[in-house]
Amino acid sequence: MQSDPQRRARGAQKIGEVLGQTPEQVERSLGDLAPQLETYVLETIYGEIYQSPALDARTRQIVTVTALATLGTAAPQLRTHIGGALRCGVAREELVEIMMQLAPFAGVAAAINGIAACREVFSAADKT
Amino acid sequence: MQSDPQRRARGAQKIGEVLGQTPEQVERSLGDLAPQLETYVLETIYGEIYQSPALDARTRQIVTVTALATLGTAAPQLRTHIGGALRCGVAREELVEIMMQLAPFAGVAAAINGIAACREVFSAADKT
Amino acid sequence: MQSDPQRRARGAQKIGEVLGQTPEQVERSLGDLAPQLETYVLETIYGEIYQSPALDARTRQIVTVTALATLGTAAPQLRTHIGGALRCGVAREELVEIMMQLAPFAGVAAAINGIAACREVFSAADKT
Amino acid sequence: MQSDPQRRARGAQKIGEVLGQTPEQVERSLGDLAPQLETYVLETIYGEIYQSPALDARTRQIVTVTALATLGTAAPQLRTHIGGALRCGVAREELVEIMMQLAPFAGVAAAINGIAACREVFSAADKT
Amino acid sequence: MQSDPQRRARGAQKIGEVLGQTPEQVERSLGDLAPQLETYVLETIYGEIYQSPALDARTRQIVTVTALATLGTAAPQLRTHIGGALRCGVAREELVEIMMQLAPFAGVAAAINGIAACREVFSAADKT
Amino acid sequence: MQSDPQRRARGAQKIGEVLGQTPEQVERSLGDLAPQLETYVLETIYGEIYQSPALDARTRQIVTVTALATLGTAAPQLRTHIGGALRCGVAREELVEIMMQLAPFAGVAAAINGIAACREVFSAADKT
Repeated sequence: MQSDPQRRARGAQKIGEVLGQTPEQVERSLGDLAPQLETYVLETIYGEIYQSPALDARTRQIVTVTALATLGTAAPQLRTHIGGALRCGVAREELVEIMMQLAPFAGVAAAINGIAACREVFSAADKT
Repeated sequence: MQSDPQRRARGAQKIGEVLGQTPEQVERSLGDLAPQLETYVLETIYGEIYQSPALDARTRQIVTVTALATLGTAAPQLRTHIGGALRCGVAREELVEIMMQLAPFAGVAAAINGIAACREVFSAADKT
Repeated sequence: MQSDPQRRARGAQKIGEVLGQTPEQVERSLGDLAPQLETYVLETIYGEIYQSPALDARTRQIVTVTALATLGTAAPQLRTHIGGALRCGVAREELVEIMMQLAPFAGVAAAINGIAACREVFSAADKT
Repeated sequence: MQSDPQRRARGAQKIGEVLGQTPEQVERSLGDLAPQLETYVLETIYGEIYQSPALDARTRQIVTVTALATLGTAAPQLRTHIGGALRCGVAREELVEIMMQLAPFAGVAAAINGIAACREVFSAADKT
Repeated sequence: MQSDPQRRARGAQKIGEVLGQTPEQVERSLGDLAPQLETYVLETIYGEIYQSPALDARTRQIVTVTALATLGTAAPQLRTHIGGALRCGVAREELVEIMMQLAPFAGVAAAINGIAACREVFSAADKT
Repeated sequence: MQSDPQRRARGAQKIGEVLGQTPEQVERSLGDLAPQLETYVLETIYGEIYQSPALDARTRQIVTVTALATLGTAAPQLRTHIGGALRCGVAREELVEIMMQLAPFAGVAAAINGIAACREVFSAADKT
């Protein structure tokens, strides 16, 4: 994938708003080895898909947190997006209830692991 | 699982509000063979979990649709809950954008199959 | 994979006992295109793994039915192994309760789809 | 979910029998943040679903261990339920053979990870 | 997602080469309801990700077929990409052996369902 | 499963070529507790399935790495087979691009976790 400066700027602003991350953080974790994946994350996901006004920021994070908790294979990404959900106005009680609602559909282990992820993110937020 | 009349009444009302189903529809699909699973669906899921005010009806359906589309193994349930989301005030454009948001997280096949499910549900709704 | 006549004979006898299938049925569904997969199914799975006395036939089928229902991506195989479970002495009520026990762990859609598979297999058995 | 004292008492007794856990252990891991999920685990899973006589305790644990090993996303829960299977009379050799039976159906990584979970639980049991 | 004419042209050419599809086919299946998903498929996947010379076309299709067969939830997409693999020079015998290699890693049902998908695609190709 | 000396010798040679492992390494991780799973891995997977000339070694490792990265539940096995892919002539740039190609099909978390696995394996290789 080729980088596009305008798209990159839009993505950088969006990832800041949603996750509180700087583009440098994405670069640091992916850019050395997989610059094309860095471009995909920053420019396609945050610079294109997240730009659509068809879902408000809050709902978009609820969808993302639900998808990652359901997969059960994305622990670091789940914690990052729980943090993003808090930034976008999802209340802690709502995040906990999302995990409860997942229990019958995605299985109780997904719910318990989701609560454990919430606990880590909430604790870290309380310390800052 | 043993049935509890009060819990059953609460579940019956809730499944009507959320999915537009009568308890008889759940009974017909499960009750002959698996009355305990019918009780679990009607009384635990709709009579207990869905009763909590910690998530509004709209958000709860967004979570459920997202979880089912991410799993990819629950086509009939996904269609039912897309219908439920419409009943609870989720707009068609939002449901489509939920599938778009799932594309990078749950994979493009989950998104395409989710759009196909939306198309079926929207068409059926247009005919009634 | 290379076929081994002794192993093949053991597998053929076992698949008859467990699933009531003849080796010709496996051959017909796989042998034209994928003889190595036919060998793997008949000789490795039924001629080697199923031969161990460490699990009785009944328990082995309970494990297999549970794994296939949990995966949710193997509908024809699930029906075949539900039939095998009946042959190996698992009662209909037990198969239904296995799906109930799966509901909280593998999700309610896995349980509902598992009950639908049971219904098909039980109905077919009633007609013969 | 609202707690029901009778159901809670039944669930507390059952989780003790099956997993050797006290209700306080469930409370400690979930009750601070997600009391409704604690209620679901203790009262619905152990106080309702596990109460049915349609499966004996041993078979129920075989089903649970198989489902969790197949999912592959529930490592702590898998270890807990392997311990529960031992308590309910499943032999170590049977647990190992369950993982072997899973290899062709759920994939060899599920089997290898299941054996690693068995090794941890068996070692911990040998030390007490 | 906003469409970009140059990227669209590149994607249209690539999807023709890889899958033998015209952009109109993607439009017809997605464009009415989900134009943003159509843009993602045509422009991001085929117009950006598939453009990289870091994998040859043949290898890229082997990866895609393997991923879809492993997921087990994408039957129509699996058939489409098996067809694409044939177009990109993967031999029928190789596709069958890919499914064989998947058997121990993704489970025998993924392999059997993958062979069934191969059979459908090969038969359709023989009729044209 | 019963061990067969010839098959074991073939498997031992193959696992050395593909993964650079000795049969003793497989024995050490599985043989104490699960000798039948050790036999399955060494003799069936490497002594039978891997023996077929229908896929060259390089392609076989691309398939295996793709399947394990798509599953997302097999982190140690993924690292082992990334190492095997390097031994079989898959370039680092190709492995990185395989993860990129997985992003739209298996989800971005599978791709990011796959890149993290590549980084670990490449770093370890640079130190030896």
